Amino acid sequence: MQIFAYVFIMNIAIIGASGYSGAELIRLLAKRSDAEIQTLVSGTTAGKRLDEVYPEFTGRTNLRFTALDDASFKDIDVAFAALPSGESMKIVPKLHDEVPRVIDLSGDFRLPSTEQYTAYYKHEHVSPSLLPKAVYGLPEIHHDTIAKTSLVANPGCYPTSAILALLPALKHGIVEPTGISITSLSGTSGAGRSSSLEMSFTEVHDNIRAYKLGAHQHIPEIQHVLSKATGKSVTVSFVPHLVPMNRGIYTTIHSSLMQSISQEEVFGLYKSYYREARFVRVKEQVAQVRDVLRTNYCDISMHVDKRTNQLILLSTIDNLVKGAAGQAVQNMNIMFGLPEDCGLS
Amino acid sequence: MQIFAYVFIMNIAIIGASGYSGAELIRLLAKRSDAEIQTLVSGTTAGKRLDEVYPEFTGRTNLRFTALDDASFKDIDVAFAALPSGESMKIVPKLHDEVPRVIDLSGDFRLPSTEQYTAYYKHEHVSPSLLPKAVYGLPEIHHDTIAKTSLVANPGCYPTSAILALLPALKHGIVEPTGISITSLSGTSGAGRSSSLEMSFTEVHDNIRAYKLGAHQHIPEIQHVLSKATGKSVTVSFVPHLVPMNRGIYTTIHSSLMQSISQEEVFGLYKSYYREARFVRVKEQVAQVRDVLRTNYCDISMHVDKRTNQLILLSTIDNLVKGAAGQAVQNMNIMFGLPEDCGLS
Amino acid sequence: MQIFAYVFIMNIAIIGASGYSGAELIRLLAKRSDAEIQTLVSGTTAGKRLDEVYPEFTGRTNLRFTALDDASFKDIDVAFAALPSGESMKIVPKLHDEVPRVIDLSGDFRLPSTEQYTAYYKHEHVSPSLLPKAVYGLPEIHHDTIAKTSLVANPGCYPTSAILALLPALKHGIVEPTGISITSLSGTSGAGRSSSLEMSFTEVHDNIRAYKLGAHQHIPEIQHVLSKATGKSVTVSFVPHLVPMNRGIYTTIHSSLMQSISQEEVFGLYKSYYREARFVRVKEQVAQVRDVLRTNYCDISMHVDKRTNQLILLSTIDNLVKGAAGQAVQNMNIMFGLPEDCGLS
Amino acid sequence: MQIFAYVFIMNIAIIGASGYSGAELIRLLAKRSDAEIQTLVSGTTAGKRLDEVYPEFTGRTNLRFTALDDASFKDIDVAFAALPSGESMKIVPKLHDEVPRVIDLSGDFRLPSTEQYTAYYKHEHVSPSLLPKAVYGLPEIHHDTIAKTSLVANPGCYPTSAILALLPALKHGIVEPTGISITSLSGTSGAGRSSSLEMSFTEVHDNIRAYKLGAHQHIPEIQHVLSKATGKSVTVSFVPHLVPMNRGIYTTIHSSLMQSISQEEVFGLYKSYYREARFVRVKEQVAQVRDVLRTNYCDISMHVDKRTNQLILLSTIDNLVKGAAGQAVQNMNIMFGLPEDCGLS
Repeated sequence: MQIFAYVFIMNIAIIGASGYSGAELIRLLAKRSDAEIQTLVSGTTAGKRLDEVYPEFTGRTNLRFTALDDASFKDIDVAFAALPSGESMKIVPKLHDEVPRVIDLSGDFRLPSTEQYTAYYKHEHVSPSLLPKAVYGLPEIHHDTIAKTSLVANPGCYPTSAILALLPALKHGIVEPTGISITSLSGTSGAGRSSSLEMSFTEVHDNIRAYKLGAHQHIPEIQHVLSKATGKSVTVSFVPHLVPMNRGIYTTIHSSLMQSISQEEVFGLYKSYYREARFVRVKEQVAQVRDVLRTNYCDISMHVDKRTNQLILLSTIDNLVKGAAGQAVQNMNIMFGLPEDCGLS
Repeated sequence: MQIFAYVFIMNIAIIGASGYSGAELIRLLAKRSDAEIQTLVSGTTAGKRLDEVYPEFTGRTNLRFTALDDASFKDIDVAFAALPSGESMKIVPKLHDEVPRVIDLSGDFRLPSTEQYTAYYKHEHVSPSLLPKAVYGLPEIHHDTIAKTSLVANPGCYPTSAILALLPALKHGIVEPTGISITSLSGTSGAGRSSSLEMSFTEVHDNIRAYKLGAHQHIPEIQHVLSKATGKSVTVSFVPHLVPMNRGIYTTIHSSLMQSISQEEVFGLYKSYYREARFVRVKEQVAQVRDVLRTNYCDISMHVDKRTNQLILLSTIDNLVKGAAGQAVQNMNIMFGLPEDCGLS
Repeated sequence: MQIFAYVFIMNIAIIGASGYSGAELIRLLAKRSDAEIQTLVSGTTAGKRLDEVYPEFTGRTNLRFTALDDASFKDIDVAFAALPSGESMKIVPKLHDEVPRVIDLSGDFRLPSTEQYTAYYKHEHVSPSLLPKAVYGLPEIHHDTIAKTSLVANPGCYPTSAILALLPALKHGIVEPTGISITSLSGTSGAGRSSSLEMSFTEVHDNIRAYKLGAHQHIPEIQHVLSKATGKSVTVSFVPHLVPMNRGIYTTIHSSLMQSISQEEVFGLYKSYYREARFVRVKEQVAQVRDVLRTNYCDISMHVDKRTNQLILLSTIDNLVKGAAGQAVQNMNIMFGLPEDCGLS
Repeated sequence: MQIFAYVFIMNIAIIGASGYSGAELIRLLAKRSDAEIQTLVSGTTAGKRLDEVYPEFTGRTNLRFTALDDASFKDIDVAFAALPSGESMKIVPKLHDEVPRVIDLSGDFRLPSTEQYTAYYKHEHVSPSLLPKAVYGLPEIHHDTIAKTSLVANPGCYPTSAILALLPALKHGIVEPTGISITSLSGTSGAGRSSSLEMSFTEVHDNIRAYKLGAHQHIPEIQHVLSKATGKSVTVSFVPHLVPMNRGIYTTIHSSLMQSISQEEVFGLYKSYYREARFVRVKEQVAQVRDVLRTNYCDISMHVDKRTNQLILLSTIDNLVKGAAGQAVQNMNIMFGLPEDCGLS
């Protein structure tokens, strides 16, 4: 008897591989038997071994970083662009031409219009023609279009936590679509791997500060995705804060109830809404950062505040996993028809 | 020629002196030449030297803790009660009888009615007759009544940061008195010096979690003080969070603007409102925890969010200083007719 | 054609399952397809669901904690005792009678004599008859005896880092076996999951302190294991410190060179000594905690200090993995004839 | 009757005023009534207000940073150079010409020979002629020469903690002057205020790493000062580590006892040796970082390890206070004939 087995191995390229999201992609993909990282592109560390830059990989891999000019994308099945916004859109068109599936982790292909992009990102968009092709890669909303697209715009970290928390309440018409107040707290890895005084240990430790008030580029992303998904014109205020931890986002949302509804009813609606979502956990306990660290989960808990007629939502993710690399891998799984949680649990 | 000089030395007793607020009172008072700590009462550490419990005081003082039963309050000019809520009201009546000035750092004398007290503190009030005598010790509102009272109810840490941030906007009718959403982040010393699993390092580090949603005892305090000060019925939602740092509170407030007003106008109103407040700093830079640590300042900054028609307020204090012991000393200074900032700058 | 396949599933019991080492065992074992956790025994959390105590497990398991009296060890293939020293020796005899393989994570079966045990652990040993049966479970020394034993005494966290660092140098006669100075730094999870003032966040954060000088129970363990393995009488001084992080041990060792030897030669000897050790990495870069967090690696680097004629050794592990649960799983793998790194990489 | 009072106000200049040591000098000096900061020189922040760079100073001062070329040192009584080593020696000669007292916080004038300097600092010394004039500013050794000199070389942070811990034992001949093993742990502010990837929060948090093994520039400083003070040829090995906290140094020293001596005797000798040292506390409790934070104290505790015949010394300082700015102010007080602890307690 003969057994013919065909094992498909995904060939993978990561561009911007030396940053924190890039390294997290490597962590998630290097352990898989159905994926093989072929190319790690990095301008700043080109020529170095992976374990020189991230010594945790010593003895586990012989991967090396390559300069973009030296990289070939022939036979690559999926390319991840883990570059800063503004940089990504310069290289994604080439990737999209040469590689069948591209997942972009930057903010460059998340907004529908170049006007909004320029207003918040403060520079021109150089690849507007790709915008209509990009699918916003939040699997809990766009699973089916992700499965068919060649270009995924991987969601931002703050938007992932805020959108997943608000979506069921807005869909069910429980809360007002306007006057929503979002307060988010983020660990430092969200700012990327770079040297700046304001991100130095001495400045961040024992400190909290809000930043980019009213101007954060994730505001239009949250509003656009929620408006499109609910058919309502959603507006939110958003105040991000930097807190002294490496990973994790905690998002606390105050919204106005449109009806009298009990804690149990809201909990039931959320449970039901996410009953098939592999990575959203609707919790009776108060959500906390620790429970999602190094996982692809988004934990959500809620409180009906009868006294003020508010629905208070708490949601938490690991910014490098569900907020970046993990969600990108989840999208990759969907694009290849694999179970969503392959290599993620 | 003869010079008659009379140097008045305040004799001080601290009850509950081994807790974090008590220790901060000692830090602030021990260095003053016009004050002398006579009595440190502590049930848990009675008989021990101060520097056994807090080795930082080694070589600086010979103070010892005494049991309440062994303490005399004769000749004491001012007594600070730094006990947990519920414990304080059992001893304050005795203190108030024996000592001319009492400053209570607990929540026991901050609310006007025993009904509200019991609803939030979850136990009966055993000294209701003292409630009408207590003055809420927020010097930025009640300076003159503090100067004349024999009993100060020292404000809570969260209320101090929230009330000072909201007061000018509410007084000037800039924002709606309802629908105010308060999100606060606190370091761990606010929970007091005690052993519990949930406050252990391993549980708190690299974590954030909200707690006491809709049930925190500071909700009625914030609402009552703001309502009384503004003549409006103020209601707020309030979500406190525990964050991994020792000291500091960061409060972020979303409120609805009632009129079209510019950033500059609001800034000007705040500057003007607090022009004589020694310990409130209205800031152009975004408020951050680090700037107020180990000081009695409350830093406030603001953002007029035209897009959502909100006034976003940020305020920060050190919970052990302006949020507890520092404000208590500020109140003591006022009660004795001293400059407000004696020993506080 | 017929294929007869026999898949062996290890049935597992964990006693003391609600502590940090117990929870780490669950993390490591729950994801394996060749292992099934049958029983979680915990006195303090008996009756509760695992995800009530550790909410990170929400949606991932239905495991519950049981009281010891309610637990059955029938059909259990391996039992892990993750109890405090002193508690473990009360239950291990019963486990050893009823379960074919027992791995004890406490210090109760690591020392050869009850005299030494009592001298350092400060209580009597109640199961001396089991001492000769226990194999010290450091696979880099005792792989073959671990494979055959029914009782493994899993090494302490500090000893693992110190012994692995010193072993090659002592074996090769490079350094003096006496006058060795070990300074170790540990994160807080090493102290276990318990409520105590001294382990509270406010006390540990922004602080460092040495403890148990000259009296730590790991001193006889380090000396005994190294002496036995090298045939020399090894004596060490040992100063452990508590540092503000959750996980990780950093051990810095000063030892006296017995011969003139170059950095390259020592590096070569170490590389060669550990060439087949799956979880020891001899590093050219300076060892750092971050590289081993949540891994079963022990990273070692070294510096020949010509000026002082010392060999300085640096070694780092995750105290909950290679220092406890990970090493226990490594031992389990060896006991079952599985590859050492099953479920550990 | 007439009273003639002459109040002397020290006019102060700080060069390199925007760094962490410079800012700490400002914190210590700004509150004094007998000192007035006239000039803050900083290349990187010239033209900015102090409170723009350090917002904690908002409302407390109108000081501004000046470029060196725009600064006048006329009427300055004492100048502090708080520049990096290598930079300082370029400006100190000019300061020394124009200002009667100069206190240099860099390492440029601490070593007796340019050979040693170049060997460890890796660049030439450009002001060798000033070396013989500089007095090493450790008041516990050199009080009287500090009082008379015009140029103080303020000690390094690590050397301060190590020298003060070792001095009594070496002076009394209790321990061998060779084979001394020093392990030090430092918070991040010791690395200065600068942007580098390796000092970023994400890299330092939850991590520990040794650095500059066998090559740290404080090695010759420790050896030289101890040798000169004791008349013995002292050699030490020294391993500094970076730990996740902002401030504080913890130094653990293993040394060999030369005689049989009890814990009590050593404690007594240390107590006696430092009986007049205002800022050294010999402690029965184990020294810990928290007790010296934001103070000018050096806390020392010790352990006679009979088993290994070692004297283990623990010492801790705040690297920005006793390890830099505080000690500089202590030196300034001595130079002006003021009590040593003016403005420091």
